[in-house]
Amino acid sequence: MRLYLASTSPARLQTLRAAGIEPIAVPPGVDEEAAVAAHEADHGPLAARDMVQLLARAKAEALVGAEPGGEPIDGLILGGDSAFLTSGAIHGKPHTPEVAKARWLAQNGGHGDLWSGHWLIDHRDGRVNGAVGRPDVATVRFAALDEAEIDAYIASGEPLLVAGAFTVDSLGGPFIRRVEGDPSTVVGLSLSTLRDLVRELGVDWTSLWNRAG
Amino acid sequence: MRLYLASTSPARLQTLRAAGIEPIAVPPGVDEEAAVAAHEADHGPLAARDMVQLLARAKAEALVGAEPGGEPIDGLILGGDSAFLTSGAIHGKPHTPEVAKARWLAQNGGHGDLWSGHWLIDHRDGRVNGAVGRPDVATVRFAALDEAEIDAYIASGEPLLVAGAFTVDSLGGPFIRRVEGDPSTVVGLSLSTLRDLVRELGVDWTSLWNRAG
Repeated sequence: MRLYLASTSPARLQTLRAAGIEPIAVPPGVDEEAAVAAHEADHGPLAARDMVQLLARAKAEALVGAEPGGEPIDGLILGGDSAFLTSGAIHGKPHTPEVAKARWLAQNGGHGDLWSGHWLIDHRDGRVNGAVGRPDVATVRFAALDEAEIDAYIASGEPLLVAGAFTVDSLGGPFIRRVEGDPSTVVGLSLSTLRDLVRELGVDWTSLWNRAG
Repeated sequence: MRLYLASTSPARLQTLRAAGIEPIAVPPGVDEEAAVAAHEADHGPLAARDMVQLLARAKAEALVGAEPGGEPIDGLILGGDSAFLTSGAIHGKPHTPEVAKARWLAQNGGHGDLWSGHWLIDHRDGRVNGAVGRPDVATVRFAALDEAEIDAYIASGEPLLVAGAFTVDSLGGPFIRRVEGDPSTVVGLSLSTLRDLVRELGVDWTSLWNRAG
């Protein structure tokens, strides 16, 4: 059974690889800001859990009918998205060192909730046979960094392109004191949730294994 | 600042590398069973938290005066050890498929506590200047696997050489529903605890960074 990953996130790809799955990664080409704005214009502000599901579903559905590498899709399509909720506000990628530093000065020694969205489409035999999705959340508690550590971490570039301006699986690991939830949710893809969804579509989890973990 | 890792655990080495530290790994050559037996003969049964500290300390101290690669040690020496406590019993590495399967049938859908021990010696300028250590614990909650998944996981060989017969950072990731604690504690080395210990010895954490995360 092949898994198609509708995401360009290196962290999601690495998470799947570590779990024994080499997916076919396909950039979904979704304009995330436009998708959120269009939804909010009709329905009002999105909660974090709804936002990540909206975008996870949009990414997965963008691959329906696609032919990556000239081959029709035959397998499961996974879309994923993440957002960090702290002090009542949703934070995506900071992009600039200035925003990343402001984020860290605000969340240093504090905590927040990392929401990850998942949408899984059964796309076998040339058609959509079903789809399931569910968000997952993990609470993240930060260590208290001194300013020199914050500056050094930001200078590494690592926090700039991740929701919440932190990473748990690389340089930022020691700056996370505690997680309450599925650790892979924090990285952007809850593996335990994905296993549930795969099984709900009637597929054995281990049939996705196509590489050493 | 150089870090010397007194452990042969690939998971501890990988955890440090991901956090931007390439340590000098030196096998400590400690007979763990003999060390525990000798201590228990004098003092009675060891609790998990005391056992991992006893062995972490023994491993770190085994490197004092060593000359890995013919060079005297100049930096910090880290010893680590882990044990899994579930249903009131301490479980180390299962080693055989039979023991691993018995472990999984007992802990499937349940939970346990992963204890990791840490001992850090300041070994600069040719002498021991100080040492600090502390255990950390994380609660692990397992998904409910069906027997075919358990068999496939054990057949991968991955659970045989890890305390508790499970991994969170490779094939076993989807089988962990939830962690409460520092995620790296589950892998065998709490990075947030190590950062605290490094700082207690008066060393800046980021001075250990010698590779990309």
